[in-house]
Amino acid sequence: MRILGIDPGSIFCGYGVIDVAGKTMKIVEYGTIEVKKKSDDIHLRMKEIYERISNVIQRTQPDSVAIEATFYAKNAQSLIKLTMARSAALLAIVNNGLTVSEYSAKEIKRSVTGRGSASKEQVSFMMRALLNIKEDTDFFDTTDALAIAVCHSNNCGNVLKNTKSWKQFIKENPDKILN
Amino acid sequence: MRILGIDPGSIFCGYGVIDVAGKTMKIVEYGTIEVKKKSDDIHLRMKEIYERISNVIQRTQPDSVAIEATFYAKNAQSLIKLTMARSAALLAIVNNGLTVSEYSAKEIKRSVTGRGSASKEQVSFMMRALLNIKEDTDFFDTTDALAIAVCHSNNCGNVLKNTKSWKQFIKENPDKILN
Repeated sequence: MRILGIDPGSIFCGYGVIDVAGKTMKIVEYGTIEVKKKSDDIHLRMKEIYERISNVIQRTQPDSVAIEATFYAKNAQSLIKLTMARSAALLAIVNNGLTVSEYSAKEIKRSVTGRGSASKEQVSFMMRALLNIKEDTDFFDTTDALAIAVCHSNNCGNVLKNTKSWKQFIKENPDKILN
Repeated sequence: MRILGIDPGSIFCGYGVIDVAGKTMKIVEYGTIEVKKKSDDIHLRMKEIYERISNVIQRTQPDSVAIEATFYAKNAQSLIKLTMARSAALLAIVNNGLTVSEYSAKEIKRSVTGRGSASKEQVSFMMRALLNIKEDTDFFDTTDALAIAVCHSNNCGNVLKNTKSWKQFIKENPDKILN
């Protein structure tokens, strides 16, 4: 099963595509769309997200798509901007004939690190370890997007039930997960 | 100049197209998309708004588009749903190569009735009077959308500077505007 995970934002929008077969996972493609670089106009940023996510879908042909759900932000204006960015990604998904699963940040973190309150650094570390990412660049938006894809894979159950091995991994690597 | 006004919502989405030439205005087309009727799934509702608004644009070929801006709602969940509906309309506009102007509810009301705190009934009455709408159905979403188009027309200035005539109209019809 090929899964596309999206971490949408009005400044950066991360995406990650993974292939899951049995207990193995491998990265197909990942990246971060520098949305703000395109324009200061939120409408043009939405267009950019819509087009780039449509391209990723058409190029990688995922079976399933997952996205982070938004429930709150520091203020109404931030919530509106974030929802606009997320809506652009959602429309790209549904207009390409796919359905989408939504997960809260807490669900995603719990699913990939065992802790709902894990930091971005911890999520990033787990994704690097699990998916064998060698790149040393700081790209939380991408690792967050990959985490969403992994969370969805875990949630689908039929392909990967590795909660135990996560817990084991964390137990065996307390220094690493907290580094 | 042909203007499309949109009053987006996750349950009903009103739209109205008007032609403005000099001091005359006439309706090209108007209607309300019953979004909720399509589906309970907000993603499918967004797809419906996107497709229907795209169709309106392609059919009527507006020169300019205006939409009601959202700044708040009764709670975060309502704000998210409203923003998702609005984003679907916005994407339909930008993906059809048009730019969009946003106006707050207050600006729209003030522009078409002279009062920023006017009720939906008052806005509806003014639209019916101005655009010679005979239909007696209760369709606030549509009259709100037409009001957005008229507000944009007033704001463009070059085509219609009728603030005076509005005020005159209200002065001469105090009973009607308050009915």
